[in-house]
Amino acid sequence: MTYTEVTAQEAFAGLLSGEPTILTEGVGLFESALESQGARHERVDWRPPVAGTEAALAAIAADPRTAEANREAVTRLTRARPHWVDVRPAREALAGLGERTFLHAGPPIDWANASGPLRGALVGGMLYEGLADAPEEAERLAERGEIELSPCHHHDAVGPMAGVVTPSMPMFVLHDEVHGRTAYCTLNEGLGKVLRYGAYAPEVIERLGWLERVLGPALRDTVRRHGPVDIRTLVAQALQMGDELHNRNRAATSLFLREIVADLVEGERPTTDTAQVLRFVNGNDHFFLNLVMPACKAAADAARDIGGSTMIVAMARNGTEFGIRIAGTGDRWFTGPADVPDGLFLGGYSIEDANPDIGDSTITETAGIGGFAMAAAPAIVRFVGGEVGDALRHTSRMYEITLAENDAYQIPILAFRGTPTGIDVTRVVRTGILPVVNTGIAGRQAGVGQVGAGLVNPPMTAFVDAVRALGAAARAWAQPGVGAA
Amino acid sequence: MTYTEVTAQEAFAGLLSGEPTILTEGVGLFESALESQGARHERVDWRPPVAGTEAALAAIAADPRTAEANREAVTRLTRARPHWVDVRPAREALAGLGERTFLHAGPPIDWANASGPLRGALVGGMLYEGLADAPEEAERLAERGEIELSPCHHHDAVGPMAGVVTPSMPMFVLHDEVHGRTAYCTLNEGLGKVLRYGAYAPEVIERLGWLERVLGPALRDTVRRHGPVDIRTLVAQALQMGDELHNRNRAATSLFLREIVADLVEGERPTTDTAQVLRFVNGNDHFFLNLVMPACKAAADAARDIGGSTMIVAMARNGTEFGIRIAGTGDRWFTGPADVPDGLFLGGYSIEDANPDIGDSTITETAGIGGFAMAAAPAIVRFVGGEVGDALRHTSRMYEITLAENDAYQIPILAFRGTPTGIDVTRVVRTGILPVVNTGIAGRQAGVGQVGAGLVNPPMTAFVDAVRALGAAARAWAQPGVGAA
Repeated sequence: MTYTEVTAQEAFAGLLSGEPTILTEGVGLFESALESQGARHERVDWRPPVAGTEAALAAIAADPRTAEANREAVTRLTRARPHWVDVRPAREALAGLGERTFLHAGPPIDWANASGPLRGALVGGMLYEGLADAPEEAERLAERGEIELSPCHHHDAVGPMAGVVTPSMPMFVLHDEVHGRTAYCTLNEGLGKVLRYGAYAPEVIERLGWLERVLGPALRDTVRRHGPVDIRTLVAQALQMGDELHNRNRAATSLFLREIVADLVEGERPTTDTAQVLRFVNGNDHFFLNLVMPACKAAADAARDIGGSTMIVAMARNGTEFGIRIAGTGDRWFTGPADVPDGLFLGGYSIEDANPDIGDSTITETAGIGGFAMAAAPAIVRFVGGEVGDALRHTSRMYEITLAENDAYQIPILAFRGTPTGIDVTRVVRTGILPVVNTGIAGRQAGVGQVGAGLVNPPMTAFVDAVRALGAAARAWAQPGVGAA
Repeated sequence: MTYTEVTAQEAFAGLLSGEPTILTEGVGLFESALESQGARHERVDWRPPVAGTEAALAAIAADPRTAEANREAVTRLTRARPHWVDVRPAREALAGLGERTFLHAGPPIDWANASGPLRGALVGGMLYEGLADAPEEAERLAERGEIELSPCHHHDAVGPMAGVVTPSMPMFVLHDEVHGRTAYCTLNEGLGKVLRYGAYAPEVIERLGWLERVLGPALRDTVRRHGPVDIRTLVAQALQMGDELHNRNRAATSLFLREIVADLVEGERPTTDTAQVLRFVNGNDHFFLNLVMPACKAAADAARDIGGSTMIVAMARNGTEFGIRIAGTGDRWFTGPADVPDGLFLGGYSIEDANPDIGDSTITETAGIGGFAMAAAPAIVRFVGGEVGDALRHTSRMYEITLAENDAYQIPILAFRGTPTGIDVTRVVRTGILPVVNTGIAGRQAGVGQVGAGLVNPPMTAFVDAVRALGAAARAWAQPGVGAA
């Protein structure tokens, strides 16, 4: 290639090799734009689909239902307007929850295969429920199968990290009137030693008791006074304030507190309790995560069970496996081994201490925010690692594997472009571009807690299996009684 | 120019003419980077200084004090750590405030030359203080000179828009222990019909009474319980959350409320008052402006009276004239006619309805935020007009006329570059680049209120006069007794 043949776009790509004079001027934005442009440039190159998926992709491409089914799926996902409407104990709110049913994040798993943080959280849950007096006793109960494990996702719920829900826990209740869906999530416990990261020290159990006795009732009273709180509106505003709503919920937590505080204060309870609630919420920028997760769950569930749709309606990890569900394949999970996230580690910890990826919080990426909206939250690179340009590039790449741009969720720095929303599993397999997930990192040993935050790659095998199942479904639909290959 | 001769930078500039294929891909960031790069490219061209300033600039350049004086000035400006420490009535807090002294924004002015919104606010102030029972009576009092007008800046205070301060008004008290400076500002009245935009309807006067009776005492009690609130820390966080702290204070207001709310709730007063205070603050995203302004004032005042320094320590407008003060020229104001801002107008209004630029809020730009930090707040273009690229370009240009980058105030999208801080008046005159100011726009008729928000150009003549005065001072210092030209 001679310079006379250089096109404008190639000139950009050429600059990617990096003239130090540009960098020393401190023009980070410039560099970022180059990088994201570079990524874009790379993306328009044709790539072969993941090997062994050609026949399935061809069958799906030939399915006349797909385009309309995907339009319907992503429309439902983006039109949902989940509101926070109540706080109720899990045993009352969740269908099919027996007194010894413990919920967890991700696809189904048993105790024998559970990772350290999930085991730790289950032990903590048994201590909290009074089923055991000591961790060793709780472990023996679990080994003997005396508690029943079930995924949050099977009970209209989602849970961050270990995602353990036990019957006495107060749950946020989210309702979407547009599609008549309800979803649930526990209250966020704060930072430090917390159950969701697998900690079960006495302070953890005491805090869970306070959530049940004080925080839950205070929030229940507040939302009943205030009326339904529109979570979509708060998310839209927070995206203009540097949150991506998975690992950064600082703006959303602030806006949420502002919105409800007057009604909180007017509730009848000791002032000391109200002040304690306020200090607790103010002390935890992740508080809103447990509201945005069920909002995303309600929206994604509205798109479930649409025959022919290749849109992902759930991504979730149980600490051992990463699993996805597709709008067109009903209740089935497609799973693969969860990878270990890499990023920034808290003092003294390293990737050696990290558990494989865990939590239902990837419901945010499923709904087009979180890692997909990192361009809205450049400051998050100080938390999950990388450069500002990475945040922009991650979002730019996600447009390649999604069905729509969500006009309700706009990213100012991308000239108010909507977030990339509705992951098409066939595009993942065709392009080889995996959904970007940013996440907290749990310690691999039970009881340790959080060791860092970073990015993680989902296993491609889950997406490949889903595409194969969709291909089989397409063939079966085209030739009923013949093609269930 | 043939394409073979194209350099990388010229390729960028060439792209500025706009290939539609690039824009249709929705790469707003890309476009923005091009634009900001374009502006940068333009800036490195040499330009002649403003005509008639060459001799003064030469005298200043020859002054051996300048470099060290400016280093000292900008160091004081950026090292200040103003805290909110109290709320006190103006008559108690401000030095030299008689019962008939009314403060106003900007450089000195009399009633005869006051614009509509300033007159409206003064009328409202007289009604509020009980000096008159009707607007006409108040106007007659003012015409007869029965109230004394004095700039806020002459009493360690700043005021947004008309900036009227009367003796009974509760004032935020900000204190910087680093330099022992105190600064004051009224409490923000909220949106709609408000005194600072020149409205004086009965609801305006009633609200001022509520500020005095309920809001002021509640905030005073709260800050005394809480202890000093570090405004610099809140500003630094808000800059990472889409605020530029002049026309966008949404994040800062939210963070401020979170910070103080538990102590507010624990105060002894009727719960209905506490809830009313919370609803009032939550209803007004500009609430924090009246805390950040005096914080900037305290910081800028720390840099006053440094012989030889060419740094601007105040920019302020009284609705008729725009004025600046320089670290090296003491109390003197350099003024020029205030221009009319242009931007986005509220329904039914146009630039025909707009008053010339008004308010002390340009103290934010003086301290390196506001318009200077617009890159941190791309969403603000929806409020003041323009494209996202403009926000980035404005900040980039301000590095050309400032002395330092404030490490405490970082802009994530510029790879955490510090905001451009400490305007060097000689650079303004040498480059012809005026400080960027974004501002609310008041209606030109008394009593109308806000008609829009936008950008405005300060008058170059004020900067030229300041440079001439600095040149004369430099000559006088070099040859005492000779050079006061």
